[in-house]
Order: sequence, then C-alpha cells, then structure tokens
Amino acid sequence: HPYDCQSSNKLVRIPGLIDLHVHLRDPGQTHKEDWESGTAAALAGGVTVVAAMPNTNPSIIDKETMQLVTKIAASKALCDYVINLGASSGNAAHLPSIAPLSGGLKMYLDPTFSNLQLDDLGVWMEHFKHWPASYPIILHAEKTRLAAALFMCSIFKKPVHVAHVSLREEIMLIREAKKAGLPVTCEVCPHHLLFCQDDIPTLGANFSEVRPRLATRVDMEYLWDNLDVIDTFGTDHAPHTVDEKTGEKPPPGFPGLETMLPLLLTEVHRGRLTLEDIVLRLHTNPKKIFHLPEQPDTFVEIDLDKQWTIPPAMKFSRCGWTPFAGFNVRGCVRKVVLRGEVVYVDGKILVQPGFGKNLREVSTSMVIPPSAPSTPLLG
Amino acid sequence: HPYDCQSSNKLVRIPGLIDLHVHLRDPGQTHKEDWESGTAAALAGGVTVVAAMPNTNPSIIDKETMQLVTKIAASKALCDYVINLGASSGNAAHLPSIAPLSGGLKMYLDPTFSNLQLDDLGVWMEHFKHWPASYPIILHAEKTRLAAALFMCSIFKKPVHVAHVSLREEIMLIREAKKAGLPVTCEVCPHHLLFCQDDIPTLGANFSEVRPRLATRVDMEYLWDNLDVIDTFGTDHAPHTVDEKTGEKPPPGFPGLETMLPLLLTEVHRGRLTLEDIVLRLHTNPKKIFHLPEQPDTFVEIDLDKQWTIPPAMKFSRCGWTPFAGFNVRGCVRKVVLRGEVVYVDGKILVQPGFGKNLREVSTSMVIPPSAPSTPLLG
Ligand SMILES: [Zn+2]
Ligand SMILES: [Zn+2]
Ligand SMILES: [Zn+2]
Ligand SMILES: [Zn+2]
Ligand SMILES: [Zn+2]
Ligand SMILES: [Zn+2]
Ligand SMILES: [Zn+2]
Ligand SMILES: [Zn+2]
Repeated sequence: HPYDCQSSNKLVRIPGLIDLHVHLRDPGQTHKEDWESGTAAALAGGVTVVAAMPNTNPSIIDKETMQLVTKIAASKALCDYVINLGASSGNAAHLPSIAPLSGGLKMYLDPTFSNLQLDDLGVWMEHFKHWPASYPIILHAEKTRLAAALFMCSIFKKPVHVAHVSLREEIMLIREAKKAGLPVTCEVCPHHLLFCQDDIPTLGANFSEVRPRLATRVDMEYLWDNLDVIDTFGTDHAPHTVDEKTGEKPPPGFPGLETMLPLLLTEVHRGRLTLEDIVLRLHTNPKKIFHLPEQPDTFVEIDLDKQWTIPPAMKFSRCGWTPFAGFNVRGCVRKVVLRGEVVYVDGKILVQPGFGKNLREVSTSMVIPPSAPSTPLLG
Repeated sequence: HPYDCQSSNKLVRIPGLIDLHVHLRDPGQTHKEDWESGTAAALAGGVTVVAAMPNTNPSIIDKETMQLVTKIAASKALCDYVINLGASSGNAAHLPSIAPLSGGLKMYLDPTFSNLQLDDLGVWMEHFKHWPASYPIILHAEKTRLAAALFMCSIFKKPVHVAHVSLREEIMLIREAKKAGLPVTCEVCPHHLLFCQDDIPTLGANFSEVRPRLATRVDMEYLWDNLDVIDTFGTDHAPHTVDEKTGEKPPPGFPGLETMLPLLLTEVHRGRLTLEDIVLRLHTNPKKIFHLPEQPDTFVEIDLDKQWTIPPAMKFSRCGWTPFAGFNVRGCVRKVVLRGEVVYVDGKILVQPGFGKNLREVSTSMVIPPSAPSTPLLG
C-alpha cells in the first residue's frame, strides 16, 4: 500500500465507486446541478459511475427524451454513467424497446420531487408486466407502497432494487422477500444512516426536507443493525439551491456525492463499517444489480487517515450547501484514475467534459448475465 | 316448486344464506343493534348464518372478550353464527390458542369504524406469521394496502378473504393473486354494486358515508364485469342510528341484512345475476371459506315475483334507516326454516333469543378440511 510522502498517511486503493442514485437536474433545472458539475462532484467523491435519475425536465420517459439526455451527457459527463428511464402512466408498452439504452426503470410510487408519481395500481402492474427482467426496476416505494410493490415483484418475477430504505418495517419486508427467494435488492443513503428526526432542529426544518423523510432513531439504528440486508449504498444526490431550500415550500433532497465516501470511511474508523462493506455496496453489488461492465484501469486512491471538517458547501456541486456541514470526518479521496487516465487529483478535475462514457453503449458486448444477488457478495 | 296459493307467485327454496360480514354492535353500542335485533334482521333477509365482526366495545381480541361475546350471543342469537377475532397490535402471539373458537381473524388495515387499525407492517407480519392457516384472515384492506397484504399472503401462505372489494384496481390485484395460485378469496357488498359517487347527492353526504367509500361508476361497473373473481356477497351490515348519521361526524356504514336478498333477486330479474350466482356467493363459497358445517334441514323459501318498494327503514334492524329506501324490488323472503324449525314467516320471528347456535361449537366434529376455493364453485 502506497503512502502519502508528505503526511505518511495510509493511502489505499479501492475500485471506482458506482452510485446508482444521482439526480443531475439536466435538462431543465441546471441552476441546481448539471451533467458537468454533478459528475465532477462524483469524481471528487471517488464515484466513477453514476446512474442518473429520470425526474428531469422533461422527464426521461421515451425514446425522444432518452436521446435528448444521451446527447447532453455525451457532451458534458466527466465520469461514466447510465441513464435511468422513468415509468409514467402511459409509457409501459413503449419501454421494452428502449430498455437496453437505460440503466433501469425508475418507478415513483410515493409523493416526492417528481411529476412521475404513479397512483393507479393497474399502471404499476402494466410496468411490472412489460419491463424486461434483464434490467432492474428501481423503486421509490415507502412502507406500505413498498409491500405493495413487492407483491408485484412476486407475481411478475421482475428484479426490484429498492431505493433509499429508511424504516425498520422496510428492512423487515425486504428480509422476508429475500428469504422467499424474490429478486429484491435494496439501497440505503448516508443521510438515513447518520441523521434521524432528532437532528431536524439542528439542521432546520427547511434543510431537513428529504424523501423519504428522516426517520426515528429506532429506524436509523435498525438500518445499522441489519446491514446484511442492505445491498448498496447510494447518495440520492438531490441538489437544490440554498434559496430554494430556504424558500416557501423547500423541495426535498440532499446533495451527497462529495461527502458519501468520507462519511463512510469515518464510520470505518468508528468500527461500524469495514472497507469491504463499502466496496461491496458501492462497487461489487451495484455493478451486478445493473449488469455493468468492469471499468478497465479504474481505481480510487484514498487517504484513510486525513482528518478534516466538512465545510458549509462542497467544491463541485452547484447547490452550494450540504447537510453534513461541520461533520468531523477521517478519510478523503486523493486521486481517481478512470480508464487509465488520472481524472481527479486533490480537488482538481483533469479531464474535459465528455470524457465520461455511457456504459450501455460500452457494455452491449460485455454485459454480465442478468442475476440480481440475493445475498451481498464480497467485492 | 311450490306456489303461493294467494298470489300464485313462484316460490323457490334456496339454502340458508351465510353472511360473512355483519356488525352486531353488541356488546357496547346496542343502541345501534344487538345480537337479537341483528340476527332477527338476518333471518328476515334469508340469512341463517352470520359472521360477527370484532369491532365491538370492548373489541374481541382475546380469550376474555371472546368468552364475553360468546355468552351474549348464546343468550340472544336467533340465527346461527360464528364470532370473528380482531387483530390488535399486541395479540398476535395469543391468538393461535383461541383461533378454533372463532370464525376467522379480522385485520383492519385502513381507517374505518374501529380502534383496531394496524399501521405497523411488522405487526401485520406477526399476525400473518402466527395465525393458523386453517382459519381465514379477513382483510379490510383497500387499494395499496390490499396489495401490501397480498404480499404477506404470498410470503406466509395464509388464506385471505378480502372484505368489501370496491375498486377496479382491487379486482385486478385479486385476479393476479388467484392466477398465481395464492389462497385469496374476496367479497363484494350490494352497496358497491348498486351505488357509486354519482349517488351521493341523492343519498346525502352524511348517509353516504361508508368505508370503503362509494367509488366511481367505472369501479362499480368493473365489479359487475368481473363477477368471476368475486367469491362471496356480504352485507357489511354496519348499523348506526339516524341521529348519528345526521350528526357532526357521521360514522361510516350501511345496514343491509334485510335488503341484500331482495336487491340481488331484482338483479336476477334484470339479467345481471342468476339464482346460482347468489347461492354460490351466499352459501357454497362462504361455507367453504370459513369451513362451516352444513345446517341440517335448513332452507329459505322466497317469492321470486313479489314486487314492493323498500321503505325508509326495515322492520328488524334497530338503526331505523336504509340507503335503499325507495328502491323498487322484485322478490322477497317468505319463510325461513332453520334446523327443522320454522323460524321466520312473512315478517314474524317465531323462535326465542338463544335459538341460534355457535357453529364453532357445533362444528368441531364436522369441520370440512381447510382448503379455500381458488375459483368459485357452483352451489
Ligand atoms: Zn399491457
Ligand atoms: Zn426517491
Ligand atoms: Zn432520488
Ligand atoms: Zn470490480
Ligand atoms: Zn412472533
Ligand atoms: Zn371494513
Ligand atoms: Zn365491516
Ligand atoms: Zn349447502
């Protein structure tokens, strides 16, 4: 293991991280973030692959909007990526033909920052019936709606990846689904591991707005006690500007790309996680769930010991704030190498927009056969 | 087939009807109904077996409350009966030992007229885990909560009888569950077949309060178009007084025992139902779902042709109103024979309170092996 000559801190290499849950706000709300600023933030956080969510403006729900976003990404992305499609009330029958262009199908089954919320269970069923099993269905489905969606997963036998699990009840549902052999995996976000309702006063009601909401301390601790059920970490990087967060109706969402790894490394020092836990849930499992190709000559060099305090806002995300401001963390990203190129070193991006690749265009030849992991596999 | 000598109307004999969904309000709210008035109303409607719901006061959730209601029923019931237990947040582990005393386990998963509503999915799972498969779980679970409960049915393989289906989406869910071989049966009430939201102005907002709410015309027609999925009819006889229905917060619920059969017979004349449809869903299937013994020498003599108008209030229910007031119907109950005794003739009850029997005490020897029907069987 190489050492940082100046500080003789321990440097460690890990594979490039894969964040399956990123909102880049591009097209349509680029004042919050765009494909360039968001993927820069990703690299700064050690993330070399992002799965971009479809609740842009316009939403990514058909061939035309997918082509629009594909062009934008090709010209601006700094890290590699896949682009998720969004399930809408009318596009179930059209999606199979364009599924291979996508990371997976995002279904919004609860009210959140999107106009893609599906209320009619008949529409849910249409999507579960038509969507091809070789690509995951990503669910924003909380509590009872998660159980309802798991029913459809069991009936139509389609692989489901449950986004941002936050509740004890959701973990219990998923544990039972896995025990019954259903193709279910799930994600947890750092903010649901590190914040609960008790933190709302300190964060402020506006800034604490996020969906799923911050839960109880019991829920938060239940997540920690049941990591064996949790397949992936993800940021649910959902940038909004400070003005928007302090305005009348603050939109829900936290930025997270530049803070996830340092926060998780700090938990390694606290003994609540191991480095293997991180690699498993931010590289091995996400790659398997989304059938992504391995990125050749790609790794992240991290300084395990560097102690620092998270500032009011991180450098690359355009949103200009972070709920983790003031956190004392231990560990940071020093260097990122992507497909043999040094793309990031100590706070500087070294490649031009457009360097990032769409892994669905790369991967047509190297797709790993579709089989979602029922139990998390070591990296 | 015998004829009524006076009117030479066609008299027909059908088996005693089984209503799996009756609220007798006894103990605790006997100003609305009690075991005597309610079971009198049952006989007047051709119903010779009622399954009494547990949302009484106290609720029927343990050995003590079950024994309390068993005594009341034994002294007051005019027709035969079983008594359902209610799932509460704390009684999952205690219920198996007293399940054999009950008709089945009622779970309230939506807000309705009960203090037994269960919100924690972990509690749902406890009940699905512990309740013995030889007795049905009866669900008040609407739309998304129905799908969630069907997930638990699929995981824990426990037979579920879905009460008062009212929505297209619910029929679609149940059709998929049955197609997948899950042990699911379902009930529809006359008021969801005969009323929809368009009727609220005529009924009046207060009197139209019922859970599940009156649905859209599309939902109502979908029920008619999908009778093959519907295993039982039931009244969900839920009496409240006129004062209560016209008060501040009108409690939800319609009386129905004395009007169900005449209304359904009218639909036979309209060609929307056959007599076999009625016998299948009000005798054969309910008996099978609840593993009830056959009632010896028991039948109902009905006049198929008698035309009359439903009055503002029916004779036996204490609640003093009916949403079906003014309906012109064709068909009525002339005579009911229960275990060889003429118990009802032309508006008169001929037996004393206490004549009715608890079929769980009778049936210990003659229980039909537990196997819920996946498709409705002809009578
Ligand atoms: Zn279709
Ligand atoms: Zn979400
Ligand atoms: Zn999200
Ligand atoms: Zn790898
Ligand atoms: Zn238990
Ligand atoms: Zn109900
Ligand atoms: Zn009811
Ligand atoms: Zn019979």
